[in-house]
Amino acid sequence: MMPSPIRDILKPRAIAIIGASRDPAKRGYRAIEALFRQGFAGIIAPINPKEKEILGLPCYPNLAAVPHAIDTALVCTPAHAAPGVIAECGAKGVKGAVLLAGGFGEASDAGAELEARTLAAGQAHGVRLIGPNTNGIFDAHTGMNLVGWPGIYKGALGVLSQSGNVAMSLMTSSIRNGQAGFTTFVGVGNESDIRFDEYVRYFGEDEETRAVIVYAEGFEDGAGFVAAARAVTAIKPVVLYKAGRTRQGEGAARSHSGSLAGDYAVGRAAMRQAGIVVVERSDEMFSVAEALSHHAGRAALRIGILSEGGGVISQAADALAERGLQIPLLEPASEALLKTISPNASQLFNPVDYGGATDPHPRYLAPCTRAILADPNIDALLSVGYAGGYQCRNDTDAIREGENQAAREMVAASREFGKPIIVQNHYAEWNTEAMRIMREGGIVVVRSIEVAAACLAGLDAHHRGLARKAAAASPPVPEPAPEALAIIGAARTEGRAALLEPEALRLLAASGIAVPPFAILTRDAPAVPGALAAAPVAIKIISPDILHKSDAGGVRLGLQGAAAIADAASAMLDSIGRALPDAILTGVLVTPMARKGVEVILGIVSDPQYGKAMLFGLGGVFVEVMNDVVFRTLPLARGDAEEMLDEIKGRAVLDGIRGGPAIDREALVALMLTLSGLAAAHPEITEIDLNPVILDASGYTIVDARILLA
Amino acid sequence: MMPSPIRDILKPRAIAIIGASRDPAKRGYRAIEALFRQGFAGIIAPINPKEKEILGLPCYPNLAAVPHAIDTALVCTPAHAAPGVIAECGAKGVKGAVLLAGGFGEASDAGAELEARTLAAGQAHGVRLIGPNTNGIFDAHTGMNLVGWPGIYKGALGVLSQSGNVAMSLMTSSIRNGQAGFTTFVGVGNESDIRFDEYVRYFGEDEETRAVIVYAEGFEDGAGFVAAARAVTAIKPVVLYKAGRTRQGEGAARSHSGSLAGDYAVGRAAMRQAGIVVVERSDEMFSVAEALSHHAGRAALRIGILSEGGGVISQAADALAERGLQIPLLEPASEALLKTISPNASQLFNPVDYGGATDPHPRYLAPCTRAILADPNIDALLSVGYAGGYQCRNDTDAIREGENQAAREMVAASREFGKPIIVQNHYAEWNTEAMRIMREGGIVVVRSIEVAAACLAGLDAHHRGLARKAAAASPPVPEPAPEALAIIGAARTEGRAALLEPEALRLLAASGIAVPPFAILTRDAPAVPGALAAAPVAIKIISPDILHKSDAGGVRLGLQGAAAIADAASAMLDSIGRALPDAILTGVLVTPMARKGVEVILGIVSDPQYGKAMLFGLGGVFVEVMNDVVFRTLPLARGDAEEMLDEIKGRAVLDGIRGGPAIDREALVALMLTLSGLAAAHPEITEIDLNPVILDASGYTIVDARILLA
Repeated sequence: MMPSPIRDILKPRAIAIIGASRDPAKRGYRAIEALFRQGFAGIIAPINPKEKEILGLPCYPNLAAVPHAIDTALVCTPAHAAPGVIAECGAKGVKGAVLLAGGFGEASDAGAELEARTLAAGQAHGVRLIGPNTNGIFDAHTGMNLVGWPGIYKGALGVLSQSGNVAMSLMTSSIRNGQAGFTTFVGVGNESDIRFDEYVRYFGEDEETRAVIVYAEGFEDGAGFVAAARAVTAIKPVVLYKAGRTRQGEGAARSHSGSLAGDYAVGRAAMRQAGIVVVERSDEMFSVAEALSHHAGRAALRIGILSEGGGVISQAADALAERGLQIPLLEPASEALLKTISPNASQLFNPVDYGGATDPHPRYLAPCTRAILADPNIDALLSVGYAGGYQCRNDTDAIREGENQAAREMVAASREFGKPIIVQNHYAEWNTEAMRIMREGGIVVVRSIEVAAACLAGLDAHHRGLARKAAAASPPVPEPAPEALAIIGAARTEGRAALLEPEALRLLAASGIAVPPFAILTRDAPAVPGALAAAPVAIKIISPDILHKSDAGGVRLGLQGAAAIADAASAMLDSIGRALPDAILTGVLVTPMARKGVEVILGIVSDPQYGKAMLFGLGGVFVEVMNDVVFRTLPLARGDAEEMLDEIKGRAVLDGIRGGPAIDREALVALMLTLSGLAAAHPEITEIDLNPVILDASGYTIVDARILLA
Repeated sequence: MMPSPIRDILKPRAIAIIGASRDPAKRGYRAIEALFRQGFAGIIAPINPKEKEILGLPCYPNLAAVPHAIDTALVCTPAHAAPGVIAECGAKGVKGAVLLAGGFGEASDAGAELEARTLAAGQAHGVRLIGPNTNGIFDAHTGMNLVGWPGIYKGALGVLSQSGNVAMSLMTSSIRNGQAGFTTFVGVGNESDIRFDEYVRYFGEDEETRAVIVYAEGFEDGAGFVAAARAVTAIKPVVLYKAGRTRQGEGAARSHSGSLAGDYAVGRAAMRQAGIVVVERSDEMFSVAEALSHHAGRAALRIGILSEGGGVISQAADALAERGLQIPLLEPASEALLKTISPNASQLFNPVDYGGATDPHPRYLAPCTRAILADPNIDALLSVGYAGGYQCRNDTDAIREGENQAAREMVAASREFGKPIIVQNHYAEWNTEAMRIMREGGIVVVRSIEVAAACLAGLDAHHRGLARKAAAASPPVPEPAPEALAIIGAARTEGRAALLEPEALRLLAASGIAVPPFAILTRDAPAVPGALAAAPVAIKIISPDILHKSDAGGVRLGLQGAAAIADAASAMLDSIGRALPDAILTGVLVTPMARKGVEVILGIVSDPQYGKAMLFGLGGVFVEVMNDVVFRTLPLARGDAEEMLDEIKGRAVLDGIRGGPAIDREALVALMLTLSGLAAAHPEITEIDLNPVILDASGYTIVDARILLA
């Protein structure tokens, strides 16, 4: 694999500090101090025309005066100087510049213009830009600390963040944890040049990074990030916390980062389709990523719970069930084995309570763990209560050593069976020796039962994402049908962005979607084809000037017989012609009345961030009142379509209610896949609205179709 | 107020340890040790016939040998000895006994019998029982530590728990917090004698307790607890975490405590109606209670957010919005004031980001806090980011003292304006001096943004509970109508537990509920009254032996004209008579076809734990597919009924959809209140099912009524 072009910037051998300072309050001083403290082994070149020496290092008047090659420049000078500084970097052959200053596009129009000039300078001189408006970058493995924060631990977590504050919060979690640390952190800032997608690809390639944490408020290019992340999640887990999920949060996020949030429902779907693990609590981000850094690819759906007392096992069972995880029965042999280990146990079935009449003791811990992990019904173990914290209650040598030994054996069992263990402990903040042994061995130890459950849910989400990838290659984009292109071309020639309904029906039919038979009646050709006259029909006005047909009196239902239909069509043309004399009335569409069945809506929307997405929901009150719709971005894989059917709240309707038959799921899935292919084949189509589609046991009927062009 | 009779047991002057031991591994040793360590100032009397002295205290062979009066006995002896021990306690005049042993009703039928005998002994000898199967009790203010846990801090939180493990988790939270501690803890155990309701009343009366935490898996008497808590929450907050919310959690809980969970939806409604703050994450319990112990009764709906950087303010805005809290605009004067305080602030409107071009500094903190708290649009402040933790980043005397001073001024501002402050801090676990100042001054400091938001939501929930209490006294129970009693009496005489539909309609009418006109046709009286023959009607078979009328061919709709109706009725009696020759066919009910409108279901259910509750939901697919129903326990106050209308997911339907008019809310609320009164007036009615009721702009029509008797 070709190394990422930004690797040299994030793992520099030589760093220039532009705007270096002798003032300890200034960033140009603190950065150098942090590089020393963190043990950065490369060259540090302070640049400041007014100084000769800073912190014992020779200080250069400008980049040109530096006698070595420079990989990365930390630019501490104000915003207005940026284009000049970047040009200077280019002349020196600097590979990348970290622009700390704010006051660019996020601040004002003038700032946006300055940002554009800075970017142009970078492109002209071959200098990649990180930021501007960034907190900086660090790499814990090389000691390249350009953020100035103390106490950054080395580990396996890569961090990509739109907020320094949020990244700092992850650092403090790491310090408290004591074992889980970082590879590289990038404050993406305004994403002027290098964007989320390029960074996440870098993390995908970086061998030291075993899980990537992404904090985002909005993306410059959401679809690009999703595409990059889709490739990365096949190799390692990506955990995303997205702020701006609510209208209030979005408002706060936009004013902070200036970036566009997009629709969260579409965005969340896009992220999950790409295999990203989406967390929605800031206090779960770190632990979920830690768990994934150890156990990526392992299932964690069927959980064994182990404790030495009640209470917490009830809480754990609730927390798992609320996250869709299962607490299966153990095999009888496992229960029998548990009984031999802890004969007085209060509960030998899952959830297992090995406490009992006697006081709990760490000696039960490892054998119970092994017994549960060995069970074929179990994917992972959740230990709740005191495990790892006995020594906080009773700090004798025997207890401490017993518990440390139990921790070692739990680590060994997790490795032997290839199954994750998450430990919730009331004393987690004490960080005992046993906990350090566990954490070093890949067992995540947390204080909160709910966070522990979230870790397991995160493992399972990543595992399901991998399974989805393995099952479904992205379907190929079909060739557009010549007739479809002709219909679109004709509409565009007439300057129309909305297809007329018969055009939409013909386009769908040309693309392989079944549409009902229809006829167009006009004043010149008012005759109803015999096939349509036999059963009740609906008639609808066809006009490029009428958006809401019903409101304009342009819909009549349940007509029957050639004469009645022709009369009604003629009357409709007359009355609308009188009411809207300027409207072009193309004719009247005649279609059979739909069979009874389940009403759904199916459509294609275009999200400003994530591109085209399919929308699916139950029609009628479900969409109007309950907003029961789900999204998936295109291209839709079969698994996506099937998930959409299962994800709507009213899913029971599809299985048949009140004694009605189940709908033809296969026909619906096929329709969705064909519609996805159609939308992919025609970039010029921005919106498709099939509303309603009537489903029954033998297929689907499209009752109304609307297609918009770019 | 009469002091609670259990006060002397929980605040004993003299304690006997029955089953005292010299073995440091035994509870009978550790309890004495804990009493010493915790500084218990009263008398401790170890009882053990085999010992003369334990831990320097004289040991007595039996209770009778103790030369002082004893208030509380800690019983460490095995279960089987309990009845005898309790009798001995009675002879000595012991007021209460804490029974640690398990092996009673939670374990087996024999254990249940032993528990009954133990209770009988207590009642016979005037000894109140705590437990059995309890972890014990402590009182941090007197040092009465009978649980043996170390490090119990004195404070204002009372704890009532069905799990020692969960209580222990609260203790460790308190130790980490450093400021928030406890009054009294009771492990309720099997609730053999003293139950949740009596304990919670005690906490209501205890002046040192400012908030009560309740952990419950199930109740022996849920309705009793709710009634007691309803009284207590008028005086001080009660925070409840209920395990067993899910089927899995309930299973785990039942096998642990042996108690019946009841329906969580009904239980949660009952708790909230009683003014209890219900939390559904174990990791929020402690902090929410801490916040309430300081700020009970204060509103926290309209939140000002303050930070020194973006990112976290977006996260905070999401977390508040997701919990239904608001982030209102500040007054222009407040924004202007903020600008004078921090001219370079990134964002001067709410959420306020006082960071900016310059590095953030604690000097902005207190004046910004004051400016926001002084704003009339703001109920409470959420500070996110670093406030209180600057000294972790930059530990100079100036920063530390500046921040400590800011903390003092924030405390003063919170008091001056009578508005709560919650601080989220990335360094919360460092517990800085500034944080200690804050916590001592009633500012809750937490690590998690979501927990901080939960604290505010908890404050607001308690405040709303108080407002509800103030608004709505419990409605008086009406007298039962004589005709209603006669109908019930007649059905009982005939041994029927279900009223026939015309009986149900007459009972409803007699109780002041409007029912449609109806007639009963029989073979002997087949004539249709003229008033009913004029419009389409529905006919339904009346039979005590037919439960599902439609399935039996006992429903026909849309009949019109006296002859057609009479014929159909006769045919129905014939065909059902043939099909079900043993069924008693009382006649055929004739009612007008209902007008079109919004279909709802309204009913009374009887929950095994919480008694009678009203059920309300939208009919049709809403209830069948979406399970969109809400509950409130009886008696229903007007505010409860109005909340029910707003709580269903499909509430928009009631306001009119698709251009339809809004329903007559007032008529619906009146119906609900009358139905509640009816159910309260008739203890013998266990279930009422009005399904459907059709609502429109002019009132309601009951289409089907079903009433069950005990």
